[in-house]
Amino acid sequence: MIELPFARAEYDLRLKKIRTEMEKRGLDLLIVNDVANQHYITGYDGWSFYTPQVVLVPIENEEPVWIGRAMDAAGGLLTAWMKPENVVGFPEDHVQRVDRHPMDWIAQWISRKGWGSRRIGIELEAYYYSPKAHARLTAGLPNAKFQDADLLVNWIRAVKTKPEIEYLRKASLLAQAAVSKAYEVIAPGVRECDAIAQIQGAQVAGSPDFAGDITALPPTILGGENASAPHIMWSDRRFGANETIALELAGVCRRYAAGLARTMQLGKTPQRVADTAKAVIEGMDAVLEATRPGILAEDVEAAWRKVIARHGLKKESRIGYSIGVAYPPDWGEHTISLRPGDKTVLESGNVVHSILGMWMEGWGIEVSETILVTERGNETLTRFPREIHVKA
Amino acid sequence: MIELPFARAEYDLRLKKIRTEMEKRGLDLLIVNDVANQHYITGYDGWSFYTPQVVLVPIENEEPVWIGRAMDAAGGLLTAWMKPENVVGFPEDHVQRVDRHPMDWIAQWISRKGWGSRRIGIELEAYYYSPKAHARLTAGLPNAKFQDADLLVNWIRAVKTKPEIEYLRKASLLAQAAVSKAYEVIAPGVRECDAIAQIQGAQVAGSPDFAGDITALPPTILGGENASAPHIMWSDRRFGANETIALELAGVCRRYAAGLARTMQLGKTPQRVADTAKAVIEGMDAVLEATRPGILAEDVEAAWRKVIARHGLKKESRIGYSIGVAYPPDWGEHTISLRPGDKTVLESGNVVHSILGMWMEGWGIEVSETILVTERGNETLTRFPREIHVKA
Repeated sequence: MIELPFARAEYDLRLKKIRTEMEKRGLDLLIVNDVANQHYITGYDGWSFYTPQVVLVPIENEEPVWIGRAMDAAGGLLTAWMKPENVVGFPEDHVQRVDRHPMDWIAQWISRKGWGSRRIGIELEAYYYSPKAHARLTAGLPNAKFQDADLLVNWIRAVKTKPEIEYLRKASLLAQAAVSKAYEVIAPGVRECDAIAQIQGAQVAGSPDFAGDITALPPTILGGENASAPHIMWSDRRFGANETIALELAGVCRRYAAGLARTMQLGKTPQRVADTAKAVIEGMDAVLEATRPGILAEDVEAAWRKVIARHGLKKESRIGYSIGVAYPPDWGEHTISLRPGDKTVLESGNVVHSILGMWMEGWGIEVSETILVTERGNETLTRFPREIHVKA
Repeated sequence: MIELPFARAEYDLRLKKIRTEMEKRGLDLLIVNDVANQHYITGYDGWSFYTPQVVLVPIENEEPVWIGRAMDAAGGLLTAWMKPENVVGFPEDHVQRVDRHPMDWIAQWISRKGWGSRRIGIELEAYYYSPKAHARLTAGLPNAKFQDADLLVNWIRAVKTKPEIEYLRKASLLAQAAVSKAYEVIAPGVRECDAIAQIQGAQVAGSPDFAGDITALPPTILGGENASAPHIMWSDRRFGANETIALELAGVCRRYAAGLARTMQLGKTPQRVADTAKAVIEGMDAVLEATRPGILAEDVEAAWRKVIARHGLKKESRIGYSIGVAYPPDWGEHTISLRPGDKTVLESGNVVHSILGMWMEGWGIEVSETILVTERGNETLTRFPREIHVKA
């Protein structure tokens, strides 16, 4: 068995919080489709979510149940904390066929377990849970009452415990190692893919003391014309002699992700880049000044907006989101967003990735921090100079 | 604009094939949710599919339309071949909110376009298309008639053209570079994460002539007890002095993936490992002898099964699948499977990743090839010794 990232008491606490919320909503079974939530509850970890995979949490004080591909139940026994009978594989002959579906089998399993007539909360917007899977599940459980339970677990995840924060600190060290490596290897004439090889190396092996996991978002290094588009992937393009490059890099430790974005400049810094960077760094100061328990998420954004408006700039997209346990394709938790209209009251233990990305016509600037809300204010988990790194 | 992977004629051909199939099924609009299919049709490429993203193909000879997050429309203009008016961003204030949904906006866009009463084929089992997204889309288009169109595009993808095969050849070179690197760096006492750093480096930068893309499946190196579970991720565990290690590695060029699995042995090869490897390699010979145009997919599997049965072995899971354009989490195309019951008649241009993985109690063996079906038989695109690589 692979060592669990947390003590069993941590999982018990998570289940207790989940069940309290289930009770409030009148649910007696929760079907968890979000892979990060599945890991959060059970410790299960594996690249197996390309076939349907669920975690069932009954309202009773019983173990949750992981169900996935038979081949991957072996991985469940190695990584999840439940008894072997609660790690269940659907048969291999149900994988990716048109004449049967894993959710048919899972519905039957739920019925046989005696849970077929329950009030079931289910995550309806989890990545990897399809409309077809849901149609087959509901058809197979005609007596169940279904209710949307999106974000039920995510909101519990939004407040981090001490051991979680320790992983986020480690993840931040890896993110810093990745940005350092990028500064070191990116230069005129270097291929993007050669830089990525080194950066990914720092992300997974950047610490002698612990491993880095795969990042939920691949490293983005946006140079040249790509800098106007925030999610373009690398290629064999060579960096130019004069180029502003936005870097958005993660570090991930035991699935906990920290984000760190910075900007570097090859050649002379254009005035508009320097001006925008100045405004953005000032904006980050405002974010860090505002962030504390009791403030509304939207008010953190307002503090930023006030600063950049003074510089004649504006930004349509949100400037941050809750971050934590993450699997591809997203490291955000889909709960707190720093943007107008988000009335979430920040509290101690929240961790947000505040990313100030300005994608202009043909160039862009990014500066971000992974920020822990503390009892008295906040603490940036990522610690790295914010200025544009110039390689002249 | 980033250079498209294919000439425009290739995209025209793809659209023609798709429209022929749409016509057969009585569809006058296709909503494509599968990210690999979206790329196949439009060239669009970006890590943006963590928010809803669709490609619309009307039956008329008009350009398809990409719709995704506003921020990512900039990436659409850089990577997709359509005119700017056919690269559409939904507003930033629709991202991950409970009070509105991108699919509400997309449904309205479709209505305004005059397509709201069409017979719409839609992919209902794409990875990033959720039950909630589908419920909002259908609610927003009450006059449309929806029909499941899963795999419509995938089946067209199953037959590769010459330019696609060229990318798969390049991808195979990267997969080989990755396995070579693994053989070089894996040794007793080395941390898994340090090996992964080097292996990923070979995957993305293993050729001086072209870049490797992110792999749809992360590299798996299954040593020690992990070898019994096929999809466990790496950690900071150190390789032992005596250990059988199964490697499953991809190479990806312009999103086209080739797979290559091999096994290495640290220390003395246990007899059971040597015996199983012998059976598996003989089984691969049988697969390659059988694979040719006109044979049924299940008959390829039968040829393998006959061989390993003679060695007293059996395998529950399929031994291969169609492979090609790929985004996480899967490099398989979900069409052809080499397994009992799959009556697909193989034809020239099919490419299958045949993976013979035997995951036993506490150890495992893997050998695979990426195989192109040719006019006369087949050709392995991956070319690498199949024997267990022993480091004594």
